[in-house]
Amino acid sequence: MKTSRRSHVDPFIVMDVMEAARAAEEAGREVIHMEVGQPATGAPQAARDRLAAAMAEGPLGYTVALGLPELRRAIAELYRDWYGVAPDWRRIVITPGSSGAFLLAFTALFDTGAKVGMGDPGYPSYRQILTAMGMAPVGLPTAMENRLQPVPGDIPDGLDGLIVASPGNPSGTMLDHAHLSALISTCHAKGISFISDEIYHGIQYEGRAVSALEISDEVYVINSFSKFFSMTGWRIGWMVVPEDHVRVIERIAQNFFICPPHAAQIAALGALSDRSECEGHLSVYAENRRILLEELPKIGFDRIAPPDGAFYIYADVSGLTTDSKAFCDEILATAGVAVTPGLDFDPVRGHQTLRFSYARSTEDMREGVRRLAAFMRDRRR
Amino acid sequence: MKTSRRSHVDPFIVMDVMEAARAAEEAGREVIHMEVGQPATGAPQAARDRLAAAMAEGPLGYTVALGLPELRRAIAELYRDWYGVAPDWRRIVITPGSSGAFLLAFTALFDTGAKVGMGDPGYPSYRQILTAMGMAPVGLPTAMENRLQPVPGDIPDGLDGLIVASPGNPSGTMLDHAHLSALISTCHAKGISFISDEIYHGIQYEGRAVSALEISDEVYVINSFSKFFSMTGWRIGWMVVPEDHVRVIERIAQNFFICPPHAAQIAALGALSDRSECEGHLSVYAENRRILLEELPKIGFDRIAPPDGAFYIYADVSGLTTDSKAFCDEILATAGVAVTPGLDFDPVRGHQTLRFSYARSTEDMREGVRRLAAFMRDRRR
Repeated sequence: MKTSRRSHVDPFIVMDVMEAARAAEEAGREVIHMEVGQPATGAPQAARDRLAAAMAEGPLGYTVALGLPELRRAIAELYRDWYGVAPDWRRIVITPGSSGAFLLAFTALFDTGAKVGMGDPGYPSYRQILTAMGMAPVGLPTAMENRLQPVPGDIPDGLDGLIVASPGNPSGTMLDHAHLSALISTCHAKGISFISDEIYHGIQYEGRAVSALEISDEVYVINSFSKFFSMTGWRIGWMVVPEDHVRVIERIAQNFFICPPHAAQIAALGALSDRSECEGHLSVYAENRRILLEELPKIGFDRIAPPDGAFYIYADVSGLTTDSKAFCDEILATAGVAVTPGLDFDPVRGHQTLRFSYARSTEDMREGVRRLAAFMRDRRR
Repeated sequence: MKTSRRSHVDPFIVMDVMEAARAAEEAGREVIHMEVGQPATGAPQAARDRLAAAMAEGPLGYTVALGLPELRRAIAELYRDWYGVAPDWRRIVITPGSSGAFLLAFTALFDTGAKVGMGDPGYPSYRQILTAMGMAPVGLPTAMENRLQPVPGDIPDGLDGLIVASPGNPSGTMLDHAHLSALISTCHAKGISFISDEIYHGIQYEGRAVSALEISDEVYVINSFSKFFSMTGWRIGWMVVPEDHVRVIERIAQNFFICPPHAAQIAALGALSDRSECEGHLSVYAENRRILLEELPKIGFDRIAPPDGAFYIYADVSGLTTDSKAFCDEILATAGVAVTPGLDFDPVRGHQTLRFSYARSTEDMREGVRRLAAFMRDRRR
């Protein structure tokens, strides 16, 4: 059987790094994980308790396609708490992770050949999903002086959509209210659909992330329980859409997913009922970040974007290598530290960048820095 | 913001029926549910026990994109038990329900504009998902004398793919080895990719369903834990693909889903470890089916396809109505029985057909038949 042209998407390089790390561990090596974008912690106790109780009570059959109304209402409350905005809960759609939200959003907004812009570096799946759906991703190279975020001048004519992430992955940089407003109003003026990926909201260290919903209702906002709520494997997220798009999304969701995973919806309700455990993780990330920001420049990783949020540090290593993949392989083989080459995030300049993730324990971060320091010292000899 | 052309898919009409039934119940009415395609039972105890234990043990983070190797191996064992075939476990891909499998399969196999055939009547989402992905669904009208299944003569030239379901939804009819072989070899000869939807396998009353894997390895086979394993809301299924398609599927799955829901994967492992509870449900379905096959013809629903498997009876009601949707509304309003109009399954002839689901309790089926009998008696007056 033939495969389609659209199926020829790039792999996630971080997955290859994870596999190499797993193989090293299987061979008896102890690896420090600074590659994966997921918390070391699991779903909060309140989430697991809620699901355990529900499993004992009755069947977890299909829910309606847009998700449990109780969960949609609880998320509307979160918008009040976090941002002081009050979106109608009926505009909130529960999705199978932010991944499911991208599938819905791209289908609802774009046709075959549509040009959809995104800042480079950025989350690799935007590009791959668009390609697999017959659309045309357009990478917009961002500048360090713009904190690796797109600015209105980067937006070419002829785009059908723009995706922005703040805090960004891999950069961790945030767009403030003025910068996000400028992007949204430029898109509105040019008739470009605006998608705001807010998956790292809640994970921030100085100031708070601004939601696109604080600026306009004519945007798609995508979020997830994977990061702040520490529920990666549960595959549960949400999307806020303009009121007149809800029915369109509902029909696509009925057919694409039937419904989001019921068990994960119940667990998410538990997670929202008590955010204290998740807020506790932030102090760990903050300490990890403090250590890396202090130590990495001393070691030789001194060209980094200001990491306002998320749990990543993106480093320009152009002084050290022109082949980030080989450099990461060398770091794993020699130092036993798994880090991600920038190629996943920027097909052009990613040959000379690395992403460090600090989502694991502080002890791991200290050990990782020690190993990286020794590696760089030996390398300079 | 504009919506795309591809987003204009039809709604699931059964969802509207469910909503009308829910509203009737909210107004104090007691409704018999013969509309929904899901078991009244929940996930087996072994599934829930397994997940409860796993939740207490540690975080349920991302799994690899193709799913837990242990689960893929357990499904390979199921093929040995059920069909006596031994697919390499590495060809088995865990998916977020059969819905997720369709998204992967269509992306891997078809490009924009690809023509994909399916028998009418059939599962409505095939058509809607294809449309939403920029492909062209081609309905093949099937004949009652062919048990509402396509035959080689129904396959037009120029198709890129064909999807077949046995047992079928809404018909419940099965393709035997000879008929399935004839379809597969016709497709192979014409260069048409063959997809076998086997979601109702295991739910059968006389003889057993034949898997396309018994005939060829050059096919896509899609299945799920929703029906036989009674785990609808968990959104967990699988797909068996040709060996040289695994890597293609893996890359798409990494980007579309990251991974299938981890909790559901654990629960599925539990379900596979002890199939006795699920096998017990079959005697309930068998008794329900016996009652409906005996009583429905007496009442006036006498033109039905032979329901070999699944838990549906599809009835030709052309002698009773030319507007199946209005007829279903009348049955719900007058008799308090929710049934699905054929329009979901056949956009042309579905105006004159109904689907009865018998997945609920036997007591409900007896009461449903009593109510339908009274309704039809009053209608003839």
